[in-house]
Amino acid sequence: MRDHRVRVGYVDTDKAGVVHHTVYLVWLEQARIEYLRAGGLDYRAFERDTQLGLPVIEARMRYRAPARFDDVVEIETWVSTSSRAKVVFESRIRRAEGGEILCEGIVECACVDMQAERACSMPEAVRRACASGRGTA
Amino acid sequence: MRDHRVRVGYVDTDKAGVVHHTVYLVWLEQARIEYLRAGGLDYRAFERDTQLGLPVIEARMRYRAPARFDDVVEIETWVSTSSRAKVVFESRIRRAEGGEILCEGIVECACVDMQAERACSMPEAVRRACASGRGTA
Amino acid sequence: MRDHRVRVGYVDTDKAGVVHHTVYLVWLEQARIEYLRAGGLDYRAFERDTQLGLPVIEARMRYRAPARFDDVVEIETWVSTSSRAKVVFESRIRRAEGGEILCEGIVECACVDMQAERACSMPEAVRRACASGRGTA
Amino acid sequence: MRDHRVRVGYVDTDKAGVVHHTVYLVWLEQARIEYLRAGGLDYRAFERDTQLGLPVIEARMRYRAPARFDDVVEIETWVSTSSRAKVVFESRIRRAEGGEILCEGIVECACVDMQAERACSMPEAVRRACASGRGTA
Repeated sequence: MRDHRVRVGYVDTDKAGVVHHTVYLVWLEQARIEYLRAGGLDYRAFERDTQLGLPVIEARMRYRAPARFDDVVEIETWVSTSSRAKVVFESRIRRAEGGEILCEGIVECACVDMQAERACSMPEAVRRACASGRGTA
Repeated sequence: MRDHRVRVGYVDTDKAGVVHHTVYLVWLEQARIEYLRAGGLDYRAFERDTQLGLPVIEARMRYRAPARFDDVVEIETWVSTSSRAKVVFESRIRRAEGGEILCEGIVECACVDMQAERACSMPEAVRRACASGRGTA
Repeated sequence: MRDHRVRVGYVDTDKAGVVHHTVYLVWLEQARIEYLRAGGLDYRAFERDTQLGLPVIEARMRYRAPARFDDVVEIETWVSTSSRAKVVFESRIRRAEGGEILCEGIVECACVDMQAERACSMPEAVRRACASGRGTA
Repeated sequence: MRDHRVRVGYVDTDKAGVVHHTVYLVWLEQARIEYLRAGGLDYRAFERDTQLGLPVIEARMRYRAPARFDDVVEIETWVSTSSRAKVVFESRIRRAEGGEILCEGIVECACVDMQAERACSMPEAVRRACASGRGTA
């Protein structure tokens, strides 16, 4: 399991005075990239060198309490499934102060050849980066 | 069932050359507001007059094919459940040209008192607006 | 001069209850693309066929009054300068209801070869599309 | 002068493969909030306690080179004018690696009573926070 911290911006809020529900998906994306980096995979270099990408094919979000402007939120991320077909990232977002759980998300990524737009099997480099995070859960 | 059309903007794309996965949730939000309007509920007036809001409490998205810059996409929306606790909106997003299904989404909204931040039962006005869309599905 | 209309989304607002200042730049981008389309230039095809792009090199925005959720706004756009080096788009954003001016913007675009990341002279196709809009101002 | 660092996200890019021009304004907003915090003003508490806000009334951006996915960018911010009518923040955004200047921006903020939507004079607390940053320029 790995943690990523974000400070909530003014732009992230909406007229209800809380963070818009789309923003949590942006945080999960940042957290996935940091998760892979911590596991030894530089995602920028991965895309450039392999011409492969890891698009989101499914996302399930459960919103439990609102994040607010200037909150620091913590995104814990772990990999629950890693196969040739997909990697499943699970995340729990908490307000750093107090630790309240704000949102839980499950994001499934496949692997595609970005030019050919064809599904590929998940490269070993990705699966290794995901496996390395598991031991620390 | 009701339809909403959107033209994909340049800002909606990412470096993979396709629409970023968060944008589909923005389209579903627009489609819900238009769905309610078609059912007789002006959501702006609803928030102003009742001080209630309809936050997203759960979202499940299945991404099947990418939307691209300048595509026109059609969002079909219908209500599958409407109770005192929540309204469940289901949507199917297609590329207008050709009709390919790009994404399917299920979004659950609860009702909250925005000042007190307390769950409320779903007002009749919302449930009526949702019921009115059903007959046309 | 050409007009483009947009309905303000919930996501476009922030906790001050009005539209976030970055959103007006998104509207100007949509308006530029529609301006070029009306002048005979399909910007998607232009990028694909020429591998050129028209990045923003300068933007000046003057915010006069806030747009609000669910407002319809009108973006009038015209080209004030069109040279080999750049095209300058000027825009005025009004609330459709009442006609109040909300924002004025000036956006300068250059032309670049997107692979080589090198400035190019503005293609005739772009300049023609821009010239065609002038007569209607 | 104060510095703020940001890691470029995937969502920040567009199909040209670089950061979308609106994102730089988001970074300037984050940098202003951190600038004020460093000067002793907690902007969240300021809005809550005074019911005042500091909306952007003018922005001028000059884009010189593109930021890219996963770059770390540094936003240097200083206040060039601070009067009863407005505070003018100037910023220079560089790629951390190599130090290339990517963008320069000037953002003017006024002070408004958010309920009454009426211009106010700039509170002393804001002007003090701005003055404190000057000495370090």
